[in-house]
This record gives sequence, C-alpha cells and structure tokens, in this order.
Amino acid sequence: MTLETRLTRSLSLEVPIISAPMAFAAGGRLAAAVSAAGGLGLIGGGYGDEAWLRKQLACVRPNSIGCGFITWSLQKQPHLLDLVLDHKPKAICLSFGDPAPFAEHIKKAGALLISQVQTRRDAEHAIECQADVVIAQGSEAGGHGQLRATFTLVPEVADLIAARSPETLLCAAGGIADGRGLAAALMLGADGVLIGSRLWASSEADVGPRMHEAALAAGGDDTVRSQLMDMARRLEWPSRYTARVLKNTFIERWQGREDELMAVAEEEADRYRAAWSNDDPDNANTFVGEVVGLIDRVATAGEIIQDLVAGAEARLASAVQHIGGQAA
Amino acid sequence: MTLETRLTRSLSLEVPIISAPMAFAAGGRLAAAVSAAGGLGLIGGGYGDEAWLRKQLACVRPNSIGCGFITWSLQKQPHLLDLVLDHKPKAICLSFGDPAPFAEHIKKAGALLISQVQTRRDAEHAIECQADVVIAQGSEAGGHGQLRATFTLVPEVADLIAARSPETLLCAAGGIADGRGLAAALMLGADGVLIGSRLWASSEADVGPRMHEAALAAGGDDTVRSQLMDMARRLEWPSRYTARVLKNTFIERWQGREDELMAVAEEEADRYRAAWSNDDPDNANTFVGEVVGLIDRVATAGEIIQDLVAGAEARLASAVQHIGGQAA
Ligand SMILES: Cc1cc2nc3c(=O)[nH]c(=O)nc-3n(C[C@H](O)[C@H](O)[C@H](O)COP(=O)(O)O)c2cc1C
Ligand SMILES: Cc1cc2nc3c(=O)[nH]c(=O)nc-3n(C[C@H](O)[C@H](O)[C@H](O)COP(=O)(O)O)c2cc1C
Repeated sequence: MTLETRLTRSLSLEVPIISAPMAFAAGGRLAAAVSAAGGLGLIGGGYGDEAWLRKQLACVRPNSIGCGFITWSLQKQPHLLDLVLDHKPKAICLSFGDPAPFAEHIKKAGALLISQVQTRRDAEHAIECQADVVIAQGSEAGGHGQLRATFTLVPEVADLIAARSPETLLCAAGGIADGRGLAAALMLGADGVLIGSRLWASSEADVGPRMHEAALAAGGDDTVRSQLMDMARRLEWPSRYTARVLKNTFIERWQGREDELMAVAEEEADRYRAAWSNDDPDNANTFVGEVVGLIDRVATAGEIIQDLVAGAEARLASAVQHIGGQAA
Repeated sequence: MTLETRLTRSLSLEVPIISAPMAFAAGGRLAAAVSAAGGLGLIGGGYGDEAWLRKQLACVRPNSIGCGFITWSLQKQPHLLDLVLDHKPKAICLSFGDPAPFAEHIKKAGALLISQVQTRRDAEHAIECQADVVIAQGSEAGGHGQLRATFTLVPEVADLIAARSPETLLCAAGGIADGRGLAAALMLGADGVLIGSRLWASSEADVGPRMHEAALAAGGDDTVRSQLMDMARRLEWPSRYTARVLKNTFIERWQGREDELMAVAEEEADRYRAAWSNDDPDNANTFVGEVVGLIDRVATAGEIIQDLVAGAEARLASAVQHIGGQAA
C-alpha cells in the first residue's frame, strides 16, 4: 500500500506519514515501527535525557529514523544534537523555539531539517532557516502548541511556501487519526501529515495501560489546553505554549488557581511526578489531542498506518464522485 | 458548475454551500445572492431587530432562503420565529443555545431545522431534536463559538450521525474560504459547508469599507477569541461562548482587565457602538475568522461561490493521483 506525494518522493517514503517526536512516549521502538511501515519515525528527544536517548538510538539503524527536540530545551544541552547526529538520523525535527542556532549544523551533517510551527509568522522564519519540511501544527493537537487551527494554518502556510520557497515540503499536524484526516490534509495543500495521538495509542508507544484506557474512554470534548501540568512539573515553557491533555482531577483542582499552585509547586511537583510514574490518569495528565474522540483501540503502529492509508485511498478514490455530471 | 453531495440532493441545491447567518452582515441581499448562485443563503436574524428583519424578508422570495437566530436571544422574543416562518423560509438555523423549545414548531411549519453546534455533546442533542442539518462549527470560525476545532469535530460528529441517525445531514463551519477547505470538509465526512468570513468579505454583505480593508490586510495570526466585545456591547452571552475577531486597539486596551471594563461598561458601550457605527476597526471589532489569512479581495457572492466550487472540483478531480500506481 502506497500513497504518493511530494513528501514521499523527496524523502523516499512509501506513505506520507511522519510520527510525532512525543516526549516520553516515542522511543526507538515506535520510530522504527513507523519507518518499517513506510513512513518516517521520529524519536521524541523531549527534555533531553541523555542516557534514555543513547538507549533509543542503539536500537535503530542509521538513516532509518529521525529525532525531534524541544528547541528551548535543546538550547540548554546543545551537545545532545551531536550525539544524535553521530547516529546519522534521516532528519532532525525542532519544535517550540527558534531553529536558527541549529539549522545550518543539522543540514551540514546531512540530516533533513524539519521545523514544527504553530503560526504563519513562525512558518516564515522556518523557511528563512531553510527548513526542508515545515510542519503546520494546529491547536487541536495533543501535547504542546498554540492557538491557530490546522484547518486554516495549513493552507495559509501552503500559500506562503508557494510564494517564497516552492521546494519546501509541508505537513499538517493536529487532529489526524484516520484516512479522513489524511485525505483532508492533502486537500488543504499539505504534502503529508505528522501523527501524534493516534500513534501514542499504539502498542509500540511507551505509555502505561491506564493512560491508554483513559484516552480510549474519552471524547474530543474531554480535552483542554493548559499550563498547569508544566507548572506542576516545574518545566520552564515559554508562556505562549500550552499543552492539550485530558481534563482530570488535577486540572479540576487547579484551574483558575495558578498562583496557589505555584506557591506549593515543590510539593506538587513530587505528587505529579509520582502520579505520572504510577500511570495515574487522574493525578497526572494524559497528553492527547482532540482527535482522541476518533480513537477506540490500541493497535500496532503498522496497523495504524495501514488503516490511515487505506482510509485515505478510499476517500481520495471516491472524491471525483462529487463533481457534477460524474455521479452515477 | 455543480458539486453533488447528500446535501445538494436533499435540499435541491446546485452546490453544497450554506451562507452563515451573520448578525448585522448577512441581510436579504447576501442571502438571495447565495441562493441565486446555487447554495442556500441564510439571513442573520442576530439579536432580533424586528424592523430590520421585516425589511430583509420583504426582498426575498418564499422558499428561497433561510434565516438564522441566536437561540438564547430568540428565547427573549419568540414571536420573531413566527414572523419569519410566515414568509415560508426554506430553513431556520438555530445557534448558541438549546434548540429544543423551537424544534417541533419549525418542522411543523415546513421549514428545515438547521442546528449549529460546537461540541460533540451538543451534536447529540441536535440529533435528539431531529435537526435536519447539523453544522459542526470549529473554533477557527469568525464570530461566536467555542473551542473544538473543525478538523476533529466534523469526523467525530460524522461518526455520531452514522451510528445514531444516518439521515441527518452534516456541514462543516469554521476555516473554509476556498476550494481547498471545501474539498477537505468533504473528505472529513461533511455533506457540505457553512461559509461565514469569506462571504462577509463580499459586496452583498452589509459591512463597512474600513472593516473590509482591515480584514484584507490581516493574516490568520491576527485574530483572537474574546468576550470583551460582548462586555462592551452589554450583550448577555452565556459564558461558554467567546467570539473570534481581529485583534485591535480595543482588545489591547482591555485584555486581562475584564473587571475594569465591566466597571465602566455604560460609557464603553456608548463608545463601542459609536465606533461600530463609524466603521472604525480600531475601536470596534472586525468579526472574522482565522481564515481571513486566505482572503485577499472583496468579491461578489456569486464569484466567491464559483471560486469555491471550481477550486474544490480541481482538488477532488486530482485526488486520485496520490494513490500508488495511479500516478503518471
Ligand atoms: C503525548 C504527546 C507528546 C508530545 N510531545 C512532543 C514533543 O516532545 N515534541 C514535539 O515537537 N511535539 C510533541 N507533541 C506534539 C506532536 O509533535 C504533534 O504536533 C501532535 O501530536 C499532532 O497532533 P495529534 O496529536 O492530533 O496527532 C506531543 C504530542 C503528544 C500527543
Ligand atoms: C461577522 C460574523 C458574524 C456572525 N454572526 C453569527 C450569528 O449571528 N449567528 C450565528 O449562528 N453565527 C454567526 N457567525 C458564525 C457563523 O455562523 C459561522 O459559524 C462562521 O462564520 C464559520 O466560520 P468562518 O467564518 O471561518 O467561515 C458569524 C460569523 C461572522 C464572521
């Protein structure tokens, strides 16, 4: 099963699907499975745990997968970039911060530069930094992000790319879990998609069973964007980013009481981390997007990708039926 | 030029496009132009100005257009519903509130019931109220709404409809301004689209030239959801609804100072209404969605609809090229 776009041709993929570099959840196992299924798997470099990163890289072949970093965090440990580049990744994905300080180094090392952006303004900057692939991420996405929606950000960035840098590739991120979303992203002008939540709910993701269960039971109305989790975890996220998670006891307790939370941050950090380690979706958060309402089982990454492609093919093949005079 | 879907067949339209019932902007002229172009035009009944409504209805033919109401506002002047039903509209659209008290009356009068919803939960309720058409409105939309995004709400409601009430029709609203968005909405499982902002920027809309200018100059990053405008206008919107507008001097002045604004609401209401009457986009707000970044000229409703359909046809016709083995 293949689906052809500019992305598959440029990156020699069989399907125009990149897996999201999800902190904690996307290790070498998930990335390898996605690449084996014909897409491009990305390891989630996250906040930069060197020992963990070495372990993930040890189990993947050179030039087969990529690695993503949270840019503002990489700035504190820039040596991690070389650690990854030494393993000859196919691509480095930078999200949440300025890619400029790293762009040239990545490209010189022979890796593709993927830049995930949340606004048109940041897309302009990514193009100036000569990103090979721009990911336009909408607010419906799981995990961190901003407020623009996939539906408008993708075509607006597509127009920008067409005008300024037609060779740059574009992927849509945020809200894509099945063939409908993949087909819609292509219609909007994307060359492919970045998939987070749907692959988070895979057997290869490093996610506890209770977090998975909470997500399968939830609908799209049950998620919220918040900064409370980062306050509790004492992570120094720039203020423009919030993260989308499932609403839970923790959110209910602290919503609107940010100052009080900050006042007891030390204790709460311990509680939050313990809940996270205990796979407790009430007191730590399930990081997942609005698209959770379309996810009803945990499957293998291979099955998920096959589903995405088969579903998109069916939609794309029947698209022509809408055109006047072509219908039966 | 035609585009066929379940919506066009059920409602005897040529194109699967409904125009949004935009308060103040969508009068009889715009609604008639949209219906003349093969779609379904809706008059924006808004907050219920009886004299204005009579004037709009006087210039449209029976059974040619529909009318939309802000439901919580209609509840204060329910007689306006009969005033409209007496003109034999093709449909009544209810948004922002519970359609239950009006549903049966509308259907008994022979009009279609269109229910615009912002969550999966409200979509369930709309189906229970036997809405003929459910509009799933995403947060990227111009004007009032909530926080779910078009990209995930549409397929989630499509699944709900398939499971519970397969005859119910589904339209996507929020973020659609050209053929890409229309084609994408169909891929997501919608039977058609509701278009606001793009038709707000038409020559038939009742919008001042400076408001139009401000929108043409803006990009999608320049909008924001806020409740400040409703505070200044002293409109009693239920707290879950915010409205998307262009950021401007008014928003900058009051953002984060809601309490202070409420304290001087009387004066500010006068200032705001004066600025609105004066077509002043700095001190009153341009109500428009994120999709403003895709709009670069004011055109006639007929031209806009032709563009939408031609663009969607081109996308849909070439969709099949992505399928492996089908490419040249
Ligand atoms: C559990 C989870 C963790 C994430 N962590 C990261 C991360 O560390 N770095 C990053 O660039 N994006 C991260 N994201 C965001 C993804 O890159 C992507 O934009 C998003 O998942 C796409 O939306 P979707 O979840 O609807 O597929 C994360 C997403 C999820 C669901
Ligand atoms: C200027 C303006 C006024 C609006 N007023 C109303 C209204 O009175 N009633 C209503 O149901 N929706 C109203 N809406 C929302 C539309 O029904 C629709 O959901 C929205 O415009 C779709 O998103 P789009 O603007 O991206 O096309 C308004 C939208 C705009 C842009």
